[in-house]
Amino acid sequence: MEDGAGNGRPPATAAAWNFEPNGTLLGLTSLSVRGVLGRVKAGMVVDGDGGGGDGRRAVIPMGHGDPSVFPCFRTTPDAVDAVAAALRSGEHNSYSSCVGLEPARRFFPTIDRLKILKFKLNSRSIARYLSRDLPYELSADDVYLTSGCAQAIEIICSVLARPGANILCPRPGYLFHEARAVFNGMEVRYFDLLPESAWEVDLDGVQALADKNTVAMVIINPGNPCGNVYTSEHLAKANEVYAHLTFGQNKFVPMGVFGSVAPVLTLGSISKRWVVPGWRLGWIVTSDPNGVFQRTKVVESIKSYLDISVDPATFIQGAIPQLIENTKEEFFEKTVGVLRQTADICWEKLKGINCITCPSKPEGSMFVMVKLDLSCLQGIKDDMDFCCQLAKEELVVLLPGFAVGYKNWLRITFAIEPSSLEDGIDRLKSFCSRHSKPKVHQSLES
Amino acid sequence: MEDGAGNGRPPATAAAWNFEPNGTLLGLTSLSVRGVLGRVKAGMVVDGDGGGGDGRRAVIPMGHGDPSVFPCFRTTPDAVDAVAAALRSGEHNSYSSCVGLEPARRFFPTIDRLKILKFKLNSRSIARYLSRDLPYELSADDVYLTSGCAQAIEIICSVLARPGANILCPRPGYLFHEARAVFNGMEVRYFDLLPESAWEVDLDGVQALADKNTVAMVIINPGNPCGNVYTSEHLAKANEVYAHLTFGQNKFVPMGVFGSVAPVLTLGSISKRWVVPGWRLGWIVTSDPNGVFQRTKVVESIKSYLDISVDPATFIQGAIPQLIENTKEEFFEKTVGVLRQTADICWEKLKGINCITCPSKPEGSMFVMVKLDLSCLQGIKDDMDFCCQLAKEELVVLLPGFAVGYKNWLRITFAIEPSSLEDGIDRLKSFCSRHSKPKVHQSLES
Repeated sequence: MEDGAGNGRPPATAAAWNFEPNGTLLGLTSLSVRGVLGRVKAGMVVDGDGGGGDGRRAVIPMGHGDPSVFPCFRTTPDAVDAVAAALRSGEHNSYSSCVGLEPARRFFPTIDRLKILKFKLNSRSIARYLSRDLPYELSADDVYLTSGCAQAIEIICSVLARPGANILCPRPGYLFHEARAVFNGMEVRYFDLLPESAWEVDLDGVQALADKNTVAMVIINPGNPCGNVYTSEHLAKANEVYAHLTFGQNKFVPMGVFGSVAPVLTLGSISKRWVVPGWRLGWIVTSDPNGVFQRTKVVESIKSYLDISVDPATFIQGAIPQLIENTKEEFFEKTVGVLRQTADICWEKLKGINCITCPSKPEGSMFVMVKLDLSCLQGIKDDMDFCCQLAKEELVVLLPGFAVGYKNWLRITFAIEPSSLEDGIDRLKSFCSRHSKPKVHQSLES
Repeated sequence: MEDGAGNGRPPATAAAWNFEPNGTLLGLTSLSVRGVLGRVKAGMVVDGDGGGGDGRRAVIPMGHGDPSVFPCFRTTPDAVDAVAAALRSGEHNSYSSCVGLEPARRFFPTIDRLKILKFKLNSRSIARYLSRDLPYELSADDVYLTSGCAQAIEIICSVLARPGANILCPRPGYLFHEARAVFNGMEVRYFDLLPESAWEVDLDGVQALADKNTVAMVIINPGNPCGNVYTSEHLAKANEVYAHLTFGQNKFVPMGVFGSVAPVLTLGSISKRWVVPGWRLGWIVTSDPNGVFQRTKVVESIKSYLDISVDPATFIQGAIPQLIENTKEEFFEKTVGVLRQTADICWEKLKGINCITCPSKPEGSMFVMVKLDLSCLQGIKDDMDFCCQLAKEELVVLLPGFAVGYKNWLRITFAIEPSSLEDGIDRLKSFCSRHSKPKVHQSLES
């Protein structure tokens, strides 16, 4: 038998095989939160299973946004029962229609949208703002089911992309949007969220960034990764600024409370509210009473993309009506209660760490952004270095801010067990003390 | 309250809003099998629920490839139990790693690959061919889990795309490949499958199509939509032709029984073998003992794309080891037994219809391609017209061949209940008789 190696013939080379993968893709590596967290954790030496059950120190995962592994955030049995029943029925083993199963789509608009669309600690959300005075009913046709919110983002980026187009994204924010937009040939322009103003949108910045090639402005509410919740007033203002801008030279056309803003695509998923990110069920809802998305073929384009895209598992779609109907309010209250408690712990305990500043108390989502004061630390280059050393020394995992476009800040997840959170922030504090410059150095430098 | 309509101001127009969706996407509509079937069915008037349970004539769905709705193809309780257990464990509610859960990945290579990778009536499959003499063991690292085979295709198209690249696809074949390839800027070139030679690959055609920009050749086995199963000998020949071609000017390097062919990406899913297309679990397996995919960064690019892509539901991934281990051989035997029976029915009964020719008996998959002789029919323009009229008059749904790149042929699905299949072909026969030209016309024209 012949073998390519050691027989004097050249082995197959990259050039010989006509493989030369998509360069854009390769450039995207390391942009993702899971990619960055992987590098942060790479230097950790974990004894045992890392869970701490063996008496050794446990890893405290305050870096990723997935509380589903913690008992206090376990999803409701009602949701599990709904999915199990749909699975056992045998009626949802086939392919889905590309827009999603009708009963699941129909269910969304018939109940209080707020309940499904936003996981929140605070009631002043964009969903309520939009639905409160909506002069029309949403129908099943306005809802498209997706494999989680990530696919909803993918679809919208693909649909809106065209040569020269740009999209306005918040900073801090997720580079996933950028990765997807860039993959589709769009330019991403970042507007700032202002830490000193409870992370409100820098509206002047938006004004300066937008031009005739701007196809959309991304608003994330409750704020992720900032943990803020926008007021109706601020959202109205942001929407108006955007609507004016995207109308370009045209005179601003007020269309009533809702119509005065641009048509809206709401992306969401059951991941956060039911604490089941692994179930991969999300949606795109078009809020567009004036039919702009129809006229501009955005709707047609969404359907076309869905037609060549992955669908969420059919039986999970089939479970949606029961899942929504059967979940008791107490489950949401319990989850929000734990988050309120951990947000409090986080806010109070972070005050005691002198090289970390938390600009505002988190009011929503499961994250808070804090500022690192490198000038009072020694032997630490930047946020990534801080997180790597912290992981190695204290087994505490945080996300370096650069991963959300905010260099030398940190994103802290407080959606973990309260006791672990206290332990984690204590370890963070002792790490900071240990790496603090002596006071005299600090004053000399300043 | 002001309103955009009727106030003298121009309403928001497409130009005013900077939406102008991705043109490529819009061009893709109507390419998909589900899109074409939707148009075929559009003219049907169905009494009651269409199921025939009310004594009215039932719709016979021989157009789509999804037998999961029929009792005789119902998936095994072992598979349902495995998924339900994974769901109820609460251990798989979180995000997955982008390449897939380790236990599921590990499981693939440890069992007879044939069992998982190919649903077949005949043992001479490419999987067995490839694994039989494999001089190395596949590891978990060679396996990437995807949301069904469709996402596997999406990923590979995105990974291999680059300006000027082309990919060789079989005709008849699925335009889904084309849609995905075109969306990624690749050119699709079709090589023929030869109906008179049991749908073998036209190797001379492949030779004529391939050039230095050819990045891959797609081989589907068991043949879909043709229902054939390739011999090892033919596959070996096809692989060698391709390997020679893609080496371009380089001397052909034989690397042993396996190494003499190009490195292979095997795409598959549990959809067909477990009859659960709605569960959306598939995979990409790299078979590449010489590390070509590593060197050429194909592996890195697959991981990058997975990093910004939808994952299959985590608990379905978590169920894979149990699902594979617990499924009894009898389930597969039963399914294959029904398919053998329905393939026989199809083959025998089609012989009795004189304007339809079936070039060879189906030996695998769930489809057969048959040729329509329009010259002996009157009032029927083409395959689409035939299918629309058939659906309207007989409530029998077939897929017009143009949807798989084969104008004036039909794709018939025999993966339905045997009694429905008999009924369906009887109706097809009476439709053809009713629309046949009188014999004298036929002879005058010929």
